Parts: sequence; C-alpha cells; structure tokens
Amino acid sequence: MLYEINEKALKLESEGKKIIKLNIGDPDLQTPPEIVEAAYDAMKSGKTKYSSAFGEKSLRERLAAVHKVYADNVVITPGSKWGIFSVMYLLLKDGGNVVIPTPYWTAYELAAKTIGAETRFVNTELDSNWKIDLDKLESAIDRDTRMIILNNPKNPTSSVIEEKILDGIVQIANDKCVPILSDEVYADISFVKTKRILEYGGDHILVTGFSKTFTMTGWRIGYVIANTELIEKLAKLNQITISNVPVFIQDAALKALELKSELTEKIRQEYRERAKLAIGILSTSKLEFSEPNAPFYMFPRRTGLDSEEFALNLLDDGVAVAPGTAFGDYREHFRISMTVPRDDLHIALNKICEAVE
Amino acid sequence: MLYEINEKALKLESEGKKIIKLNIGDPDLQTPPEIVEAAYDAMKSGKTKYSSAFGEKSLRERLAAVHKVYADNVVITPGSKWGIFSVMYLLLKDGGNVVIPTPYWTAYELAAKTIGAETRFVNTELDSNWKIDLDKLESAIDRDTRMIILNNPKNPTSSVIEEKILDGIVQIANDKCVPILSDEVYADISFVKTKRILEYGGDHILVTGFSKTFTMTGWRIGYVIANTELIEKLAKLNQITISNVPVFIQDAALKALELKSELTEKIRQEYRERAKLAIGILSTSKLEFSEPNAPFYMFPRRTGLDSEEFALNLLDDGVAVAPGTAFGDYREHFRISMTVPRDDLHIALNKICEAVE
Repeated sequence: MLYEINEKALKLESEGKKIIKLNIGDPDLQTPPEIVEAAYDAMKSGKTKYSSAFGEKSLRERLAAVHKVYADNVVITPGSKWGIFSVMYLLLKDGGNVVIPTPYWTAYELAAKTIGAETRFVNTELDSNWKIDLDKLESAIDRDTRMIILNNPKNPTSSVIEEKILDGIVQIANDKCVPILSDEVYADISFVKTKRILEYGGDHILVTGFSKTFTMTGWRIGYVIANTELIEKLAKLNQITISNVPVFIQDAALKALELKSELTEKIRQEYRERAKLAIGILSTSKLEFSEPNAPFYMFPRRTGLDSEEFALNLLDDGVAVAPGTAFGDYREHFRISMTVPRDDLHIALNKICEAVE
Repeated sequence: MLYEINEKALKLESEGKKIIKLNIGDPDLQTPPEIVEAAYDAMKSGKTKYSSAFGEKSLRERLAAVHKVYADNVVITPGSKWGIFSVMYLLLKDGGNVVIPTPYWTAYELAAKTIGAETRFVNTELDSNWKIDLDKLESAIDRDTRMIILNNPKNPTSSVIEEKILDGIVQIANDKCVPILSDEVYADISFVKTKRILEYGGDHILVTGFSKTFTMTGWRIGYVIANTELIEKLAKLNQITISNVPVFIQDAALKALELKSELTEKIRQEYRERAKLAIGILSTSKLEFSEPNAPFYMFPRRTGLDSEEFALNLLDDGVAVAPGTAFGDYREHFRISMTVPRDDLHIALNKICEAVE
C-alpha cells in the first residue's frame, strides 16, 4: 500500500500537482556542507579503493569511544537497514522466530518474510501510550525465538520506551537468553532522555546510523555494535555482499561525529518546533494521538477510519501520508512524517484536519 | 588462506617492510578526476536523499541504451558483488544447486555456502587453455540446478570464453531452462573481442560494474540486467537491505559512461603493457601459463608447487600473491594481480621467478 501511495503521488506530481509528502522519513534539511566537503577531500586524496569489510579503523575507534566499547565490537554498514537485515539474516536464516512490538517499522517485517522467519508481534496501543506489556512480551517468546527487535525511539509513534519498561524487557531477554536488536536510529535526536541498550551490558545488539542524526539519509552509512563473534560474522557477510562502505563516505561520517553536538542540537530544535506546530493544529481536530518524544513522526487515530482509503483520497488534496496498516494492525491510524518545511507542514496538517472531519 | 596472507602482509608492512601486493584486484590507478567532480557536484546540489531501489532513471536509461535493452531491465547495485549475491540469493534460497566452471572467483563459492546452496564445479585446465568441456557442463546440470555462473573474461585466468564454446553453453542452458548469470566485469577492458551474454537473448542475466572499467573499486556501484520480473525482485531486495546506491555515486557513474571510450582505451593500454612485461619475465622461468586476454590477472602453474606455502614464504621476499586453492582445486597455481605500477611489477615478477626455481 505504501508503494501504491508513492506511485499515485508520483503520477499526480508528473501531472503538475503539488504533493506535500508526509509519507516518508526523509528530512527536507540538507546534509551539512562540512560533511560534503569531507567526502570530497577524501575522494580527491584517493580514498576510492577497496577497504576493510569491518569499516575504517579511524571510524570504528571513534564510535567505540562514543559508545564505550572496543573498536572490535563495531562494524560499519551501508545504512542501518543493512545492519538490521544482516543481523536478522545471520540469526534467523536457519529458522526460528523474531518477536517484534507493534506498530513496527515496515522493514523488519519485510526482512523477516524474505528470510523466511516467523514473526511474533506484541501489540501496543495508543490508549496505553504505546506501553509494551511485559507479560505479553514474555509469553511471545519461546524456545525458537532468536531475537527481539526494539525500535527506541519508535517509528511510527515517536514514543520512547520508559526506562522501567526497558529494564523489564532486558530482564526477560536475559532470563530467556534471547538477544535484543535495538534500532536506535532516532535516539541521538530524541526530545527526552532515551536509555540505550548498551547501558545494560550483555549480549545485546545496537544498530543505528548517520541518516537521521546528520541528515545523511542518501549516503547509506550506519553501524552495528555487538559481541566480536557476531561482528566477525557481519564483516564476513559484508565481504561477500557489499564489500565495504566507500571510504570517502566513512570519512564524511567521521566529520559528522566531530560536529555532532552542534549539528544535532540544531536538528532537534527544528523538529521540536515542528512537533509543537503539529500538536497545536491536530489538537483542534477529532484525531487522537500521543505527543512525539522524538523526530519525525506522529501516528494519530480517527475512530472508524480506513486509513488506506483515507491516504489515497488525501493525495487528491495534495498531501501524502502512510496508512497505519503498513505498521501492523492499525487501520484507524496513519503516519505523518514531519519532514517538510514548517510552511508546508502547516498547510498539510490543516488539510488533514479537514479531511478527518 | 587469502585472509591469512593479507594479515601477514599487513603485519609485515606495520613492521616497516615494503610488500608489493599482487594479491588483490584493486588497481593502483586513480579514479579519473572528472568522475570525482561529478560526485561532488551532485552532493552539493543536494543529491543526498533516499532514492529509488531500482536506481536513478537517468543512469538506467543510459545503461539500457548501451546494452540495447529497456530501462525496466536494469537495476543499480552497490557493486557487482551485491548483484551476484542478490541474484544467487533469490534463485537459490529455497534450495537447489549452482553450476560453476573452475577456477572461480572466490566470492561465488562463499556466497553459495552462506546461502546454503550446493555448488557443482566444472573443472577447466591450463593444458586445454581453460576451455569449458560442454559434455562435462551438461552432465553437471540436473533438475535442481537453478543457475550457471560464467565469468567472462575470467578471474583468475584472464581467459575469454571462445565464441563457439559460449554458443554451446547457451544452447545447453536454453535446452535445460537454466539461466546463466554472466559476470562480465572485465569485458569492457578485455584485450580481445568478448561475446556478451545479452547478445543471445533469452532469460539470461548480466552482472557487471564500474569498478574495473573506470577504476572505481571503492565506489561500490554495479548493475544487473535481466527480465523485469527478476529486476523487480532485486529492487525489492534492495529496498529492504541497502535501500539505494547513493545518488551522487550514480551521477559519478553516469559521468564515467560519458567518458567511456576515452577512459577505457587508456586503462586497457596500460594493462596490455603490464601483461606484455609479465609474459616476458615469466617466460624466462619454469612457470607455465596462458597469456592473458584481459586485465588484470595471470594464473601460472609450477608443477609440484604448494601455492599456499609458496605464497606465505614469498611474503618474506616482499611480494604478495593469491594461492590457487582460493579459486578451486589448483594447488600448483597462484594468481598474480598486475595492479601495481610497472616498476614494482618488474621487481615482484623477478622475485617470483627466483622463488620458483
């Protein structure tokens, strides 16, 4: 359905209609020029050769320092998505199931389906502020469970897992000897304190990337932090698939880390403003929603809504959103990506409010 | 063993010893500056966003024109290796076997092993100038065969499949309804006419890339040409794994295609000179070899040689080569990559000649 909406959006655009695209998580902001210049300098200096399937030593060391691990615990990947896919592939290719709280980012489910792994969903609801029920989670795990996937902060709700709940999840995972893959791609620009999986120790896996934090979506660079055994397997998989992330892109990422506090503060501030704007406008409508604790999404509900039909019709008003069905059993919800300038966001949100009347 | 040799080479280098690396196919030549500038221009103009999992329309159309197919038959991949892996993954993940003439590029075998596919090798020998025996090939195929992999020109022998033999292989494949995946990554810089798989029509698959033709190894960009059904599956796999090749890298590749005839002529000429030099020097030794019909490799034999031991010992003389065992059952062979400047190549080849006395 996401595909159908994107196709219709492209068709309307080709007919000359303006579409405000709140359907994908690709920020309108530009990659900071310092990062572009770092990539260019690296290219010119000949960093255009094959390199290590683990990633560049300099970048791995820098990330190890950030996360208080060893460089041997870090592997660089072409985007966090590849990190997620390849961990899932290695842990699930010989069978077993994966436990995923919903609503989920679509890619987890598609990856599991491609690999042929069973998915076990643990539903969460707006009414309980997307809280993960620990009993439900525990009973979803069985002897064939190979991993739990958490997304913290979460796409599509922009909710952050409460520390006590996360403590409970980690406890269950440890008791059952099931690793957690924690996708924390929004954590560095979260609006609230977000406890990280690596703070717990144990054999859990962090996957994250540079896309959201530094507006580098199209650069395709992320990383995995895990025990050295898994890191070596991931590097071997890199070696026979993608070889390595271009070194000039790794140099650009290194520059991004140098500028991290300055850049992330700017990005977070902009998304706080957008969230404030959205809360203000949507509050005047019949939509129910939780306030976002992180960029970029809101996942409002309108009782009785068929969000697939709604999303298709809304395109005729010039606004693209993602139907809730793309994230699990959430037909009454839809996802808004606040990844357009505030003027456009304002217009689009008002159209949404009208459409749900 | 390749890994062990590389590790020993790095160790010796870290101790201050100079190692002439003839063990990997990464050319010493630099990416042409026009290509670097095209990437930089694209980055500066904001081409740093998510994009199509099929690849950019402009690049697909250009490649379609080059290969006389439709743009819908083309998908852009992060390196030809990803093209090979993902085709193998889609065709073999549910079981079956793959037929591969030897000596083979190591990655085919590693990919098959990772995917859990059976490999059926068809041996070829120096004594018959690496000719593929059609009867042997035919009898290797059974009802579980999902694909045949050809590498033309071939790594590690730099041999080109004779047109009549290729006709025969295609005939067998067509009769048995088994697709050929033809890896033609060296074809554009071949020294001799190299018939392409796409000239035959039918449901065969071309995989190739920009790495070798344009000295862009570290950029990670290649492509697959196949029927639209397979291309759509490949794009879906891209979508849930690597998303897309960075658009600025696709723009760089487009620039490379514009300059193709000029750039490839230069590269081919340099490798012809290196091959001539190598043939001259190695002819004075006890090594037997076929003359390369393409860049970058030679795969000589010395009767009685244990190439693993030989390669490890040769490192102490400051030269790295790849043992024949990395390419199949070829213990008496080793692979030389002529990917260093001629001065260094001269020194290294003389050391090799001394070492095989």
